[in-house]
Amino acid sequence: MQRPENTAARPTPAAPTPAPQAPAAHALAPDPRTPAVALDASAGEVLAPYLHARAGDFLRGLRRHQEAGSDGRSAEEAARALRSAARRVSATLYTFRPLLDAAWADQVRGELGWLSATLAAEHSCAARLTRLLDALHRLSGTRVPPPRGDTGTLAVGAARAGALLDRQLTLTRTRAHSAALQALGSARFHAVADAVALLAGEVPLGAAASARAAEVLVPAALDAEDRLQRAVAALPLARAAHPYNAEALGQESEGQDGPWHQVRLLLRLHRYAREVLDHRPGEPERPERTAAAGVALDRHRDAAGAASAAAAAARTPKIAPATAYALGVLHADQRHEVEAARFTFQRVWQPGAVTTAPAATPAAS
Amino acid sequence: MQRPENTAARPTPAAPTPAPQAPAAHALAPDPRTPAVALDASAGEVLAPYLHARAGDFLRGLRRHQEAGSDGRSAEEAARALRSAARRVSATLYTFRPLLDAAWADQVRGELGWLSATLAAEHSCAARLTRLLDALHRLSGTRVPPPRGDTGTLAVGAARAGALLDRQLTLTRTRAHSAALQALGSARFHAVADAVALLAGEVPLGAAASARAAEVLVPAALDAEDRLQRAVAALPLARAAHPYNAEALGQESEGQDGPWHQVRLLLRLHRYAREVLDHRPGEPERPERTAAAGVALDRHRDAAGAASAAAAAARTPKIAPATAYALGVLHADQRHEVEAARFTFQRVWQPGAVTTAPAATPAAS
Repeated sequence: MQRPENTAARPTPAAPTPAPQAPAAHALAPDPRTPAVALDASAGEVLAPYLHARAGDFLRGLRRHQEAGSDGRSAEEAARALRSAARRVSATLYTFRPLLDAAWADQVRGELGWLSATLAAEHSCAARLTRLLDALHRLSGTRVPPPRGDTGTLAVGAARAGALLDRQLTLTRTRAHSAALQALGSARFHAVADAVALLAGEVPLGAAASARAAEVLVPAALDAEDRLQRAVAALPLARAAHPYNAEALGQESEGQDGPWHQVRLLLRLHRYAREVLDHRPGEPERPERTAAAGVALDRHRDAAGAASAAAAAARTPKIAPATAYALGVLHADQRHEVEAARFTFQRVWQPGAVTTAPAATPAAS
Repeated sequence: MQRPENTAARPTPAAPTPAPQAPAAHALAPDPRTPAVALDASAGEVLAPYLHARAGDFLRGLRRHQEAGSDGRSAEEAARALRSAARRVSATLYTFRPLLDAAWADQVRGELGWLSATLAAEHSCAARLTRLLDALHRLSGTRVPPPRGDTGTLAVGAARAGALLDRQLTLTRTRAHSAALQALGSARFHAVADAVALLAGEVPLGAAASARAAEVLVPAALDAEDRLQRAVAALPLARAAHPYNAEALGQESEGQDGPWHQVRLLLRLHRYAREVLDHRPGEPERPERTAAAGVALDRHRDAAGAASAAAAAARTPKIAPATAYALGVLHADQRHEVEAARFTFQRVWQPGAVTTAPAATPAAS
């Protein structure tokens, strides 16, 4: 049920094959061939400082996490910084693998993936519960006392559905919290921390890293962008552009979740590869577009996960029909959120594309 | 639960007060001041032939209905023609009431409203059941054997929900059928039929009907258009233009149903008033726009009714949680159909208005 934040896992080859209409030029511009870094430098001279800096972020996050102790908010912020650094290190090891000691890179990447997923689970549970309870609140409209209308039915079950989800997700969250604490005390974790500590001082480069950055680093970043563009080109964006396409519910939409999740991961790999070239972490090129696309894809992932959680809760034995009814409404609501996120992504990605009104067949009356 | 096709009932004063932004000119153009009829004729000379013709339609529909006997399809078609004629006579008596014997017009209109509603109920039940079963079929995606995914949960309950709705709506339909048969044999019905038969030959005009059509008939038609424009101006079209506005579910959206239903009735009154002026029944001006708007509003009414039926079915005692879950999904699906219909209406009515993407707050990750 839990979808871990495991960006470290090597993405499976983009499920969709490249669409016939070529992914075209690198529309994300500015031209990555003229990045902020000195491309006459060797690839290693560009790559190493970036990895040093992110490894430093990781170690600072780790120290803050240890110092936070039982201060929940500080611990959460530190864990967030830790995961952010782990994602960037991991993505860099993936995208620029040809320039690194490949065996070492794969090993560290795998361990960072485990760590990220373990640390993310608790936060993800909490966020999912908040999303579902907010949606139930919105759906049941508890501001106004529900009289006898349709929403009255809903309000009856919404409170019970909320309590059920609260119990289930809080339990999952508590388990995730324990697992994270256990992980942070494990020998496996200390081995990862040691590897990252080494990375803060020295990067195990491969032979190719001595070539000019323009010749080996930039092509690797462009490959990451190409993978993204191909995956996006294979998405059914024309359908997503068509609001209320009546496919929000049912297997067709859910069957499409995977390729969209994949694009989310590829967009992140692309962003981080740009950071390496630009040496300005957190400021990708055309930040508003990339950030907005990322937000839409995060929302897509969150809504899909929340819809699944609502469906899973409805499978709880012996729940009241009113509870099940509210969970059905909630599931549908979150699947519409999934469609809304796809619609937003399409608008961000293809701002020029025309949205057509849903087809309506005129009929005399 | 049943929403009768009662257009004959005098619409309640458009619930919304006129919006500050004036309803503007008669955007439905061409200018009703230059209709197809000869406006130098008296109002009665324009109105009477139209009412004669529609009364003739009514009587032919009635004869066909009696001849159809137990032939379901023929009886349904005849009932449809009968209702169509009744709606037009009734609307004309409403819009052009100042030109008629008012007491007579009000009395006939009331009786036609009763008849239309009685005849429409059976058809409306059947259409609602078809809509709901189609939606369940789409939602459960029975083409593919549902494995363990979220839609599996849905498929389990969808069949039972379908059976429940089938039982409930078939029962309602059977009752409506009996009521219609009883009505058609009643003294009350024969009195209506007699009144319409008289109308086919002579229209009880008021004193004002001897004035020029341009002076009294056209203003009455323009009043109908003004009422429509004001009611549309008071609709939250800007929100409807914003797809996936996250208000499809909950009380806010359902609380808006009334004004939209009202616009549907006013659009029909406007169309029929145009028919009187144009003397070309079935061919309103800019037919594609008016027809598309009408279709969207019919879909709105049907979806709202279907959503209510799903919610009502979920209140059935002792249903299984899986059934209730499917009904919840179905209710949400139909409420999204309501939003989709509003979106379509907005696109048809304000084709130039820009649709903005749902707001997304960029956040770094």
